[in-house]
Amino acid sequence: MILDDAPLAGLRIIEVSSFVAAPLGGMTLAQLGAEVIRIDPLGGAPDTTRWPLAPNGRSLYWAGLNKGKRSVTLDLRSPDGQRAVADLVASSGPDGGIVLTNAGHPWLSYEALQHARPDLIHLRITGRHDGSPAVDYTVNAGLGFPLTTGDEATAGPVNHVLPAWDVACGLYAAIGILAAERHRRRTGAGRAITLSLADVALAVTGHLGFLAEGQLAAATRGDDPPYPAVIPRGDDPPYPPEGRPRIGNHLYGGFARDFRTKSGDSVMVVTLTARHYADLARVSGRTEALAAVERALGADFTKDSDRYAHREVIAALIASWFAEHTTGEVAEALAGTSVLWERYRTFAELAAAPETLANPLVGLIDQPGIGRILATGTPLAQPGTPQTPAPAPILGADTDAILGELPKRG
Amino acid sequence: MILDDAPLAGLRIIEVSSFVAAPLGGMTLAQLGAEVIRIDPLGGAPDTTRWPLAPNGRSLYWAGLNKGKRSVTLDLRSPDGQRAVADLVASSGPDGGIVLTNAGHPWLSYEALQHARPDLIHLRITGRHDGSPAVDYTVNAGLGFPLTTGDEATAGPVNHVLPAWDVACGLYAAIGILAAERHRRRTGAGRAITLSLADVALAVTGHLGFLAEGQLAAATRGDDPPYPAVIPRGDDPPYPPEGRPRIGNHLYGGFARDFRTKSGDSVMVVTLTARHYADLARVSGRTEALAAVERALGADFTKDSDRYAHREVIAALIASWFAEHTTGEVAEALAGTSVLWERYRTFAELAAAPETLANPLVGLIDQPGIGRILATGTPLAQPGTPQTPAPAPILGADTDAILGELPKRG
Repeated sequence: MILDDAPLAGLRIIEVSSFVAAPLGGMTLAQLGAEVIRIDPLGGAPDTTRWPLAPNGRSLYWAGLNKGKRSVTLDLRSPDGQRAVADLVASSGPDGGIVLTNAGHPWLSYEALQHARPDLIHLRITGRHDGSPAVDYTVNAGLGFPLTTGDEATAGPVNHVLPAWDVACGLYAAIGILAAERHRRRTGAGRAITLSLADVALAVTGHLGFLAEGQLAAATRGDDPPYPAVIPRGDDPPYPPEGRPRIGNHLYGGFARDFRTKSGDSVMVVTLTARHYADLARVSGRTEALAAVERALGADFTKDSDRYAHREVIAALIASWFAEHTTGEVAEALAGTSVLWERYRTFAELAAAPETLANPLVGLIDQPGIGRILATGTPLAQPGTPQTPAPAPILGADTDAILGELPKRG
Repeated sequence: MILDDAPLAGLRIIEVSSFVAAPLGGMTLAQLGAEVIRIDPLGGAPDTTRWPLAPNGRSLYWAGLNKGKRSVTLDLRSPDGQRAVADLVASSGPDGGIVLTNAGHPWLSYEALQHARPDLIHLRITGRHDGSPAVDYTVNAGLGFPLTTGDEATAGPVNHVLPAWDVACGLYAAIGILAAERHRRRTGAGRAITLSLADVALAVTGHLGFLAEGQLAAATRGDDPPYPAVIPRGDDPPYPPEGRPRIGNHLYGGFARDFRTKSGDSVMVVTLTARHYADLARVSGRTEALAAVERALGADFTKDSDRYAHREVIAALIASWFAEHTTGEVAEALAGTSVLWERYRTFAELAAAPETLANPLVGLIDQPGIGRILATGTPLAQPGTPQTPAPAPILGADTDAILGELPKRG
């Protein structure tokens, strides 16, 4: 239940979508109080049966990405169905007139719909900015991450399991709509926005410095980029000419890595500052040994760059402490220190952990068509907005109610 | 240059931040026209020197995450410095009074700042929702992704290189601020919002169905979760009891994988529908061989689940076609088909590719303190908002100008 003081109470969005990005964008707004109506073709869009599945064959994926929405199905190939969508957009009130889609049908375009709704806000997600199709897996392949993931001995690409670009694209879509709605509130003007999955990935890759780093690597290798290599090259550049290497589970430019405990668990251990590092050295009883190595190497382990350069030596000295202690002992020893760490878990362990269900954003919901499943609401914690998730609708469940609200045609 | 019809023109945000999430949240708003003032302690926050670095030792990471902001440095340990922050928040006009931070200083809290600014919008990013610290690497370890990444033979965890949770958290922060600002515009009321990195990761893991899938796996294994396993188990559940397996670069629940071409490149090839799959079979000249296998196995390769179940057989039949053709020949053969594919590239190749710099969101900017580097603007393409990036400021460059705008204390 969304209370009226939810931040997006009143906002109405028509979503014609499938797969991850557009549905996630709409759901993000729904979980903050917006009314989101997802419109599907009769029988559902191609994502209706996407894995993972529940035992009865229903899609956990679809249920997860459409929580808290209303669902309408229409024959979108027929003029009547298309007109019903246009009517829903036009009649959705002053806080409506907002379309979110990843479909490219001409009848669903900004140009087609703005006639009946001049202040239309229309956000369309595409694969690439030229409108050609692309998906998370192909976009990611072109960027550089899969050839940098995995340990030094890995040959070939290692894909993400998390569809991170789809997620970022869905969140950017929500931002685009909210920003446009602010502008419409001030000026009365709507707008057409396009957002491509590949552009999201390229933008974020740039924001994180990977693109500039790749530019430096290309220039150092003597490649012939389509722009002058105007960054002065140092005698001892802090990056290898072949580009960022594979460094397994090490943190780039600091000291962090996975270790194996006596219990057979892997734990990720992160030190971001000199203080974190000193705490880890102390807890593991290696302060003196590490200081001796530091002197012998002429290094300064209070510096990120020196901890990174000698990461294998540091890790080798510390690994035996983890190997000699159970995960429980490791937890006890690191508690109260500044060291950041976590045990690697499976999804099954995550689901079964008591603190998961205790989190205010997690609910064991009755998902129509599936059963009682763990589901998540918004991570934005604030007064007036319950974080607990609402279930997804049954496909088409709200068709009659919503079409019945449409004004009669003359 | 942001034009006045940029969607967030006029919005003013005070950011006291470091690392990825909070700076990315502020920058996302800045790239849509908001005025974002990042405040740092004298000498900079801990992210000032984070890798990757330029040849002169300046941080490409910092430059990437603070584009288009103004920069103020203050002695944040002194009452004067803290009071200057409060004054900046209080005096920032009707479209101001917005704080974005990942710092937990009492003087920077909602409670402390709302006295001078009753309609304050305050979003604080934390590690976990109990306020304890966590970083992308530790959060990700606890979820399940690293134990599912990599091929079947991999032992132990494989970390993301992309800090995907930091990115999602920064984008959620931007959403939280815009949603709150809409509500304030309607009601006059501000609000305090907290957003934890771990909650963002847990929410998204739930949205994508991984959490419910983990719940099913835990129930099937006979684990004793802290809630009843009320989902009926089929005789032949579509998931293995031990949870989602490692499947390398395969797509879960469909047919997609990496292949090696005669040129030695790896390419990611994705078929999401029966049509995509039929096109791939035809192009690779394996339509008949695949049909024969399909009959022999009693399978139906028009179905996602059967293509997934027999993915190794399908891949083995198709792999030789890729191995016998250069990447150029593969590109030519797949052009005009529905098959989605991309060559795996390094970051250096991405940076050197002509289409990268030709993208409207990419600029070769003069970054003060570094040089001419490739940088990215917003992926949200719309009239009135240039996508090209503005550079990041030099740390503290705007201190005098911005403090000089403060009203004099009485």
